[in-house]
Amino acid sequence: MRIAQLSARTGVSVPTIKYYLREGLLPTGERTAPNQAEYSEEHLRRLRLIRALVDIGRLPIAAIRDVLTAVDAPDLAAHELLGTAQDALSPPQREDTTGHAAARDRVVALVAERDWHAGPGSPAFDDAASVLATLTELGQDDLIELVDRYADAAETLATHEVALVLARTDRERMVEGLVLGTILGERLFGAIRRLAHQDASARLLADAAVIDPT
Amino acid sequence: MRIAQLSARTGVSVPTIKYYLREGLLPTGERTAPNQAEYSEEHLRRLRLIRALVDIGRLPIAAIRDVLTAVDAPDLAAHELLGTAQDALSPPQREDTTGHAAARDRVVALVAERDWHAGPGSPAFDDAASVLATLTELGQDDLIELVDRYADAAETLATHEVALVLARTDRERMVEGLVLGTILGERLFGAIRRLAHQDASARLLADAAVIDPT
Repeated sequence: MRIAQLSARTGVSVPTIKYYLREGLLPTGERTAPNQAEYSEEHLRRLRLIRALVDIGRLPIAAIRDVLTAVDAPDLAAHELLGTAQDALSPPQREDTTGHAAARDRVVALVAERDWHAGPGSPAFDDAASVLATLTELGQDDLIELVDRYADAAETLATHEVALVLARTDRERMVEGLVLGTILGERLFGAIRRLAHQDASARLLADAAVIDPT
Repeated sequence: MRIAQLSARTGVSVPTIKYYLREGLLPTGERTAPNQAEYSEEHLRRLRLIRALVDIGRLPIAAIRDVLTAVDAPDLAAHELLGTAQDALSPPQREDTTGHAAARDRVVALVAERDWHAGPGSPAFDDAASVLATLTELGQDDLIELVDRYADAAETLATHEVALVLARTDRERMVEGLVLGTILGERLFGAIRRLAHQDASARLLADAAVIDPT
């Protein structure tokens, strides 16, 4: 198909598609004339993946490039690809808040207690530690106690999620599932958690009204 | 304290503090001379809250302004404040993907089945629907089946989280807890989920090696 049709089928504008081509996110089409190229179903699929990472994953272009490079590496192990998808979700830099080292120790201890195998260099340790250090700084220490419940819930979910994706026999689908399960799954859980919070808030405030009818 | 000391105690540069003052995120200090103002512990606390929303929440300035306006509204109900904090986490606009309406129906049905009370206008419905529609478009329908497990986990966590915060007797701490629990909690769960995924991946791939030693 021509670039105009690729645009029509995805809703992505032609200038944006050209930008992805220049940035190397989308492979060039097959040149059919000096100023014309032909794109395949593979291009369509890749373009949809890019849009998912932009729109839902809210990833910067550089992070998307890293993820796609890993997706295309023919002999990259699944576990390494998972790490690359995870790294894309971590902000590129962050200021060290007071108490970051102590908070990081707490995350390391949590992982050790549960006998989780997680790469010690993973940015997820620092991401979690930054939140804990900030909660401490803001006098919200009691919220930190919830971390064990988070870990319980995450452990249950993770086993199901990863097992589902690793069981796929088509390598391309397995690889895309690892990326999308990591990145889109995080956004999906966030949205569902918010809906559950609304319910909890509505219920608990109604209960409070019954107990204490002032 | 002077602005330089406010900067030293938070690690936020003086020009950035002045930007927050101009944008109305931080109340002006008490003027003590034509070109000099005095800031209180309240300013320090507010500045730390702003930085948490910037650094960890990754919220744009306009969203932070909305949240802080809600925090400062003396008679805003806790449930409304929770909604404002949730709205801040939703991206300001999103393209409608094919299948968005069907995906939204699915989210509405999930909420109805569980008898959750969630505002029908909440952006969390569309956030969840966007992810589901995208997963369908990318041929990852089996990942959508996980949504019930997500809802189970979210329900358990939400009750504990919201109960903990609503039980606070100090209104200022309750209000900040709702905001931080919503926004920072989402980042914290994401990071812990990633650590759990690494473990699941390491375990399942090791098991696979044992079962199928090729």
